[in-house]
Amino acid sequence: MKILVISSMLKDRHKEQILGIAKKYNAEVCFAGAEGEAPEAFAEPDVIYGFGMQMAKTQKSLKWLCVPSAGVDYLMKPGVFANEACLLSNSSGAYGVSIAEHMIATSLMMMRRLTEFYEETLDSHWGKPRAQRSLWGSRITVLGTGDIGQCFARRAKAFEPAKITGINRSGNCPDPVFDKVMSVDALDEILPETDLLAMSLPDTPMTRGILTRERLWSLPEGAFVVNVGRGSAIDEEALADCLEADHLAGAALDVFQKEPLPKESRLWKTKGMLITPHVAGNLTLEYTLDKNVAMFCEDLVNFAEGKPLKYGVDRKKGY
Amino acid sequence: MKILVISSMLKDRHKEQILGIAKKYNAEVCFAGAEGEAPEAFAEPDVIYGFGMQMAKTQKSLKWLCVPSAGVDYLMKPGVFANEACLLSNSSGAYGVSIAEHMIATSLMMMRRLTEFYEETLDSHWGKPRAQRSLWGSRITVLGTGDIGQCFARRAKAFEPAKITGINRSGNCPDPVFDKVMSVDALDEILPETDLLAMSLPDTPMTRGILTRERLWSLPEGAFVVNVGRGSAIDEEALADCLEADHLAGAALDVFQKEPLPKESRLWKTKGMLITPHVAGNLTLEYTLDKNVAMFCEDLVNFAEGKPLKYGVDRKKGY
Repeated sequence: MKILVISSMLKDRHKEQILGIAKKYNAEVCFAGAEGEAPEAFAEPDVIYGFGMQMAKTQKSLKWLCVPSAGVDYLMKPGVFANEACLLSNSSGAYGVSIAEHMIATSLMMMRRLTEFYEETLDSHWGKPRAQRSLWGSRITVLGTGDIGQCFARRAKAFEPAKITGINRSGNCPDPVFDKVMSVDALDEILPETDLLAMSLPDTPMTRGILTRERLWSLPEGAFVVNVGRGSAIDEEALADCLEADHLAGAALDVFQKEPLPKESRLWKTKGMLITPHVAGNLTLEYTLDKNVAMFCEDLVNFAEGKPLKYGVDRKKGY
Repeated sequence: MKILVISSMLKDRHKEQILGIAKKYNAEVCFAGAEGEAPEAFAEPDVIYGFGMQMAKTQKSLKWLCVPSAGVDYLMKPGVFANEACLLSNSSGAYGVSIAEHMIATSLMMMRRLTEFYEETLDSHWGKPRAQRSLWGSRITVLGTGDIGQCFARRAKAFEPAKITGINRSGNCPDPVFDKVMSVDALDEILPETDLLAMSLPDTPMTRGILTRERLWSLPEGAFVVNVGRGSAIDEEALADCLEADHLAGAALDVFQKEPLPKESRLWKTKGMLITPHVAGNLTLEYTLDKNVAMFCEDLVNFAEGKPLKYGVDRKKGY
């Protein structure tokens, strides 16, 4: 078995962790900083851990691709895998801690007007108090109750919100942190009772455009929106309109319809918009990288022993 | 009994709440927007709820001053009360929710480099990922374990830090949120094991200058400091030196030796310094205002019935 690991982030301890398991199963491992840097001997690997999309597209030998991202939308188009039977796994579960911190941070930055105070400090200006809002007593709706939504809800709970409602396809979620979990059919019912809408949805045909103009306007005046899932979920023009009309008090977007967000986008200058360049979750955080590698290693054992992958993605469903 | 309420923030429901209790005890109430606006009939009130420092200084009739602030350092100097026996109460307990949110928000803003990303967005610039830090796994030390410190610790706990150590005078704290509570004698021992130092101390002779230059340098490289108590607790010049030498990764200050922070202060431009103009807790947040009024009403009953004040301040101890 030949394993190609593509990453510029791995530390020695991660490499040793992978090598230790590979040795047990007589597998060869090659570490490459980028896809194009793989040596000839690993041109037809059985397994790739990393962003190996070019090789997946051309190598029929590939039996398993493990990507270090949580989202896999970019792998769902036809023609992505030369081997149609190639297994796919992702790293959903590695990012919850980091992304949940981003969600809490940006929610509070908006509610507490911290970017406005910050801009004043750039001019050495001691500002006056501004009307504040609070997570305390807020009605929070979490759209997408996977790892990220759950990590966020557990942290948000400590701030004593009035209630936390989870929304997902089934209306079921094992995490007791939610006061209520409803199916996506109840979205139109719950939005008018939502002070903070926290979105952590993957990009699938079902989630694309889910936050329509009509739904944005159905949020109560002064509500906040946070999106860390995929930009495709929101009608961005409608969101900007809602903000400029003071219908919404703020929106924190880490993901966009088009990334990088084009220089000419109106969103950059939209009132109440808090933009981050898709950095809520990435491998610069040691915790995330450690967990990412640990998840691959767990599934490497499964793969080597012919067992099902724990973090496998259903390529038909898209998650 | 004549009660003078000095506030420009109170809503009708707050006034009704106070009037309801006053009526029960045959007390007269006057609401004034500012101290100078009190009518002649209330020139010698028995009770003042609000910032009535000028009247406290001159009116021997005053039996109880309830201030809507948590800090009372400004009332500890000699000559503040014409009536030396005047009771004093504060609103410590009303601000924990708001200030704890500020502490979490600014900690995460520093750890996740959010001000740096924000500055880039002002130029419509899509930034590159930056090395992130996390509350997860952090060793948090809370200096001052009163209402604010406890509210902060309860919220911080949800982020799964490695440990939360509380530091206060006695080494005892009833809140089980702390993994360990130590007396201030242990400060020098705990600082080198602190990734995030969260300070919520009142200004007293004991806390003044407690975070000395030596102690700042004893924090591990890359540590963060948050201060929401009083600015007098920190050697500001030493803090700026530590930040500029990259010894500390960031400091979020809401309080300063001198407020407003002078235009010429080096702190405005110090690398890694996150300044807010003493706004972590104020009465713009409905929750805080509601609680503030509720606490005064609770003690108004106590006062009218000749019972001890629940939120009374020991004018000798200073808190």
